[in-house]
Formats: sequence, structure tokens, C-alpha cells
Amino acid sequence: MSDVLDLPDQYDVHPVTKIVRGPKRASYDRKLVHGIIDDALICHVGTVVNGRPTMIPTAHWRVGERIYIHGASKNRILGAIAEGAEACLCITHLDGLVMARSAFHHSANYRSVVIYGKGEVVSDDAGKMEHSRLFMEKLEPGRWDTIREPNKQELKATMFLGFDLNEVSAKVRAGDPVDDDEDYSLPVWAGVLPCQNVWGTPIDDAKIDPGFVGKGKKPE
Amino acid sequence: MSDVLDLPDQYDVHPVTKIVRGPKRASYDRKLVHGIIDDALICHVGTVVNGRPTMIPTAHWRVGERIYIHGASKNRILGAIAEGAEACLCITHLDGLVMARSAFHHSANYRSVVIYGKGEVVSDDAGKMEHSRLFMEKLEPGRWDTIREPNKQELKATMFLGFDLNEVSAKVRAGDPVDDDEDYSLPVWAGVLPCQNVWGTPIDDAKIDPGFVGKGKKPE
Repeated sequence: MSDVLDLPDQYDVHPVTKIVRGPKRASYDRKLVHGIIDDALICHVGTVVNGRPTMIPTAHWRVGERIYIHGASKNRILGAIAEGAEACLCITHLDGLVMARSAFHHSANYRSVVIYGKGEVVSDDAGKMEHSRLFMEKLEPGRWDTIREPNKQELKATMFLGFDLNEVSAKVRAGDPVDDDEDYSLPVWAGVLPCQNVWGTPIDDAKIDPGFVGKGKKPE
Repeated sequence: MSDVLDLPDQYDVHPVTKIVRGPKRASYDRKLVHGIIDDALICHVGTVVNGRPTMIPTAHWRVGERIYIHGASKNRILGAIAEGAEACLCITHLDGLVMARSAFHHSANYRSVVIYGKGEVVSDDAGKMEHSRLFMEKLEPGRWDTIREPNKQELKATMFLGFDLNEVSAKVRAGDPVDDDEDYSLPVWAGVLPCQNVWGTPIDDAKIDPGFVGKGKKPE
């Protein structure tokens, strides 16, 4: 997935990606951005349709310096982006609640990436097939070889959009609350309530082939 | 938090909230929408700034038929909404990956809500104080009585925005994959890989008062 060998360690800062609020939490580090993207299964994709901001949650995957999404070819949000509407993609991991001694200094620990730009449609069937495979391989490495590939009709019904990682920034908060000096003596617990996405035991399909009962694999 | 007694069970369907893709997954059920909102700590808020779609992840809370967010008064996205820019809020719970026998029928189990509308600024200090309390009570009931309340300067530095739950819709997918009839005999595991947000052991602040060591409470 990575071909960052000849690229700068840092993304360029653009007017739209320059972080003004909480600049100490900002990062343009390429590997950090890649990690935040790859650790997530879904992103939120926003654009403007009929003059109004709109948004969908959807799965994504990354190939080098591009992030990809897919959906129904007739989806109005994907369609607007395909026709040239600007998009904004956001990926967020909530890592914990930061419980301070004052209301004001409560916060969250998180890792997020925001990407701005136009999308490019993957228009040929070979490209769509390859991206079907890449997405499937993100979900479960090796699975692609065991399932039925998309047929011509399914490829036609699916739109794939890629976005360059160019106007991109990350924001990260980690660690303890930061209270005002005079508040540290207040009689209240303070610290972090950590949280994370956890995979449960795979649930067999009700119509599973008996030979495959219990063979589901949790994502890594 | 709920005052739905005299309201219809269902939200009205508006042009912008009419779900065209996957209409069987759509819902306008008021209690379902409230539950999806209340179960989440963060939402994604999109709007248009300088002609470009943009987005932030942020915490939210609900009071009856309004959802609230807050942030730095000088935040450019909140500022644009405060000045009348349309917004779109999305709340998403990823509940699992749906592993089908064909690439095309892979999916996700999820619960999401999308809200469209303009935001209204909470402009008076009493309202800001009350919303500080309501947000804190969502994080940990009873905590408000133990922490330092926001002072005048902190209230001034914080913007609170409320959005009516009017143009709102939910989308939910649950349960097994749905494969094409002829694919059920394929030799591959199929089912759901469930996931959820899990709270870990609270982490004491490094500067914690010794009397409060180990006293952190996981959210419910």
C-alpha cells in the first residue's frame, strides 16, 4: 500500500489545510496521515448538492497517495463529486474522553484526518475490478481469492472515486487533561477514559455452509 | 432529555431527507433517531466555507428536538454556521462488517443519522452555562457538581450551536449478508464481524490527587 519512498516526509500546508485552532495538535506527517486513514474502515464524505452541504458515511481504502471510496453509481452525492463538485473527507478515531478538573478543559483524545479535493472516477472495468480486490483485501487479506468477483452488471452499478492526498492535514490529541494550575487541587477525579473499536466473535450467516461454521476471522 | 410525548412518532420526510439509495434501510422514527444520536459522543459537522465543503468531528448532545455542538468561538466552521451557512450533521455507529459470498454484496452493519439545517447560536451566558452542564452530564452524570464551572472568559471563548431535528433521517443495516441465490453454495465463510466501541480502564491523570487514584468511572 505504501510507495512513499521518494516523497517528502511532510505534506505541504495549503490555505485550506492550515490548522488555526489548536495548531499544536496539527500534523502534516505523511506516515501519520497514512496510519490514521488505514486504521479506519469508514470515513465521512461531504460535498454540496443543490447548494446545500451534505454528507455520507462510507468505507474507504488507500493506495499510495490516493484514498478511494465506492457506492451505487446512482448515488447523488457520489454523482455530484463525479461531475466535479469539491469534496471533503474526514476520518476520525475517538481514543478517549479527557476528564479535567474544570468543565472548560474537558476534551477528547482523537486522531483525525481531513482531505480536501475533487474526486476522479475509476471509469474502466479493469480498474473497478482491481479496486474491488483492494477493498476486499483491506477487509480480510486473502478473501478475494475465495469469493465471487463482481460481474459486469455489478461493476456498472458501482462507482469508484479516488482523491489525491494533497490538501490533507491530521490532528491528534493524546494524554492527560491540561488544567489551569489553580484547579489541580480540586477534589475530583481527573484523567482519561480510553475507548477503542473492538471486534467481537464472528457471527456465522444463518445460511452458512456447515463446513464453514465458526471459521470467521476478526479483522487485525 | 426526552419530551416527545406530544410529537408524532415519525419525522416528516423532506426533499433533502428522502432516502433514495437503500430505501429499505431508511427510517424517520423519532425514538430511533434520538437513540442513535444519544448513543454517540461525536458527530461530523459539514458546511461550506469560502465556497468549499468542509467538515469537523466534534462532540454533541441532544436536548429534546435539538442537537447541540460547541467549540472555540473563533473556529471558522462554527463561525460560518453562526453567520447563517447551512450545515449537515452526521452521526455514524459502525456495528460490523458484513462478509458475503460475492464481493458486491459485502456491506457494513451500521446506524446513522443525517441532519440538515441552520444552526442557532446560544448567545446568553446562562444558556451557555446550562449547555456546559448538559454536555458534562452526558459524559458523566453528576460530574458537573464536582468540577469547576466555566468562568466568564471561558464562556466567551466558547460557541454553542443548536440545530433543530426537523430535516432528519436515519439509516440502519443489521443482520446477515444477503447473497444472490446461486452464490450460497460457494465454499467461503460468510457472516458478520461485529464491532463496537469499548471503554477501557480509566487512566488516572499523572497529577491526580492521591485520594482519587483509581476513582475514574467508565461511561455507561
